[in-house]
Amino acid sequence: MHVVLAGGVGAARYLVGALEAFPPRETTAVVNVGDDIVMHGLCISPDLDTCTYTLAGAIDADRGWGLVDESWQAMETLGSYGGDRWFGLGDRDLGTHLYRTDRLTAGANLTEVTAEITRRWGLDCRLLPVSDDPVRTMVTLHDGDEISFQEYFVRLAHDVAVTAVRFAGVDDARPSPAALDAIREADTLVIAPSNPIVSIGPVLAVPGVREAVAVRRERNVAISPIVGGRALKGPADRMLAELGEEPSVVGVARRYRDLVSTLIIDDVDAHLASEVERTGVRALVTSTIMAQPGVAAELARTAVAAAFGSPT
Amino acid sequence: MHVVLAGGVGAARYLVGALEAFPPRETTAVVNVGDDIVMHGLCISPDLDTCTYTLAGAIDADRGWGLVDESWQAMETLGSYGGDRWFGLGDRDLGTHLYRTDRLTAGANLTEVTAEITRRWGLDCRLLPVSDDPVRTMVTLHDGDEISFQEYFVRLAHDVAVTAVRFAGVDDARPSPAALDAIREADTLVIAPSNPIVSIGPVLAVPGVREAVAVRRERNVAISPIVGGRALKGPADRMLAELGEEPSVVGVARRYRDLVSTLIIDDVDAHLASEVERTGVRALVTSTIMAQPGVAAELARTAVAAAFGSPT
Repeated sequence: MHVVLAGGVGAARYLVGALEAFPPRETTAVVNVGDDIVMHGLCISPDLDTCTYTLAGAIDADRGWGLVDESWQAMETLGSYGGDRWFGLGDRDLGTHLYRTDRLTAGANLTEVTAEITRRWGLDCRLLPVSDDPVRTMVTLHDGDEISFQEYFVRLAHDVAVTAVRFAGVDDARPSPAALDAIREADTLVIAPSNPIVSIGPVLAVPGVREAVAVRRERNVAISPIVGGRALKGPADRMLAELGEEPSVVGVARRYRDLVSTLIIDDVDAHLASEVERTGVRALVTSTIMAQPGVAAELARTAVAAAFGSPT
Repeated sequence: MHVVLAGGVGAARYLVGALEAFPPRETTAVVNVGDDIVMHGLCISPDLDTCTYTLAGAIDADRGWGLVDESWQAMETLGSYGGDRWFGLGDRDLGTHLYRTDRLTAGANLTEVTAEITRRWGLDCRLLPVSDDPVRTMVTLHDGDEISFQEYFVRLAHDVAVTAVRFAGVDDARPSPAALDAIREADTLVIAPSNPIVSIGPVLAVPGVREAVAVRRERNVAISPIVGGRALKGPADRMLAELGEEPSVVGVARRYRDLVSTLIIDDVDAHLASEVERTGVRALVTSTIMAQPGVAAELARTAVAAAFGSPT
């Protein structure tokens, strides 16, 4: 079993590769819920939905979120009232949130609801929220204001400096038993190329998860989301710098050194391999940019092979 | 000022006529909230929306509810998950519920939110929810099960016998100050041809409302929603019979005898006028079926004239 700690877009692309490379039932993603938000009364789980829609081939690839062939009637009406429409919810996508809200209100947990949603989309792999309890990523801005992750990421287009990040509720959150079992029983564990602070950070912050990952470090691999000092998507590079970490594969290695024995870095960062290895993590250099067909599957094969063969 | 106690479709049609007959700013509707429901996490106010959409000329006249030119992407997605889709929510209509839910969550009351919504639709008359507090019409079925009004009305298509009706929360509900003021200060008050039990019933059940209406009985008029022993729309006739009342203009007169001095009945019920008057209410016979253009405006003129000229 191949377990992936996952955020949104980068993780979803990696998972597409994993499903090409291995039988789908052998992959399980443990997914971030720190991005989740209740908006307009609806329970929204952006990372779970991005993974689901991407794996189902239904994501809008141009936008990078939401469903393809989407319509926007509800948002247009909401906007006509002067309502908040900075968080785009397509009409089809709304159906997912209506369903999730109903089921959670009826007492189902997020793990159950996610299984129901992925089944409808025909996914054969498992997507497991890291916790069924609320964990909310909160971002402190330079002016001292603390806002939700989605306000930072979407409303402000992450175009502001961050001075602190915390995961509200995480101390009281229990890990999903299924997710914890998957981490413990995985043959290989891969930390996807997601934002280390706000995508992987909340996953690891759920009590018990970091320990369960660390204890099996020798069979764990991370893929750097930083390539050539830049995040391929999103604010990971700036966030690392703003929080006093190095926005490079070396900074990523320092963050994950207790959790993985191998860090996969892109060819453009080959010159940093020895510096990565001085952190105590093996550097494995390969092509990591998943825009081209076939790269993600090859990356999954490389990651799994590295986890099995890690000599650290 | 012309104040109308209002439910859904019948009241909305009457209000269209009132707005043709009089300057729009002179009409205020005090609207039922017993049909309101929280569904999929959204705060839905069917009677307020039916009045708003109808007065804005945006109602889907064929369906009798919701917006014209509507799309159903959200419901289709919800249905694909096996979710509850018996309560139809079009994509455009959803925008209204998203907005209302946001504003109520932010601390606005239903009176304020309704004013914002009606302003967007360009209405010049006022729609006032009878209360800003939750009042929920609950229906007991023959088998003893108690269900919400919308489950009875929509999910079961009101095709079941009712043994009792109650308005949950009404004892703790306060009347909207604006609604109570409107009732007290109205020159004429008209009880619209809405279901007396489940549309007008909850309005009158809010503490203080029945008394405020009764004390000005001489300037109040009701329009019978029962014509020829049948409700023009909905289950009012069957409900009256099931609850032991007479499904006729005479039954309506008995229900409203303490509240109005005149009951307007349709021409087809002219033979019951004397029986109506034996209940202590003046019977005024005219054409009340508002399907034809002009009838509603004429009905409004008749009602207002009767309220001014009531000789009882």
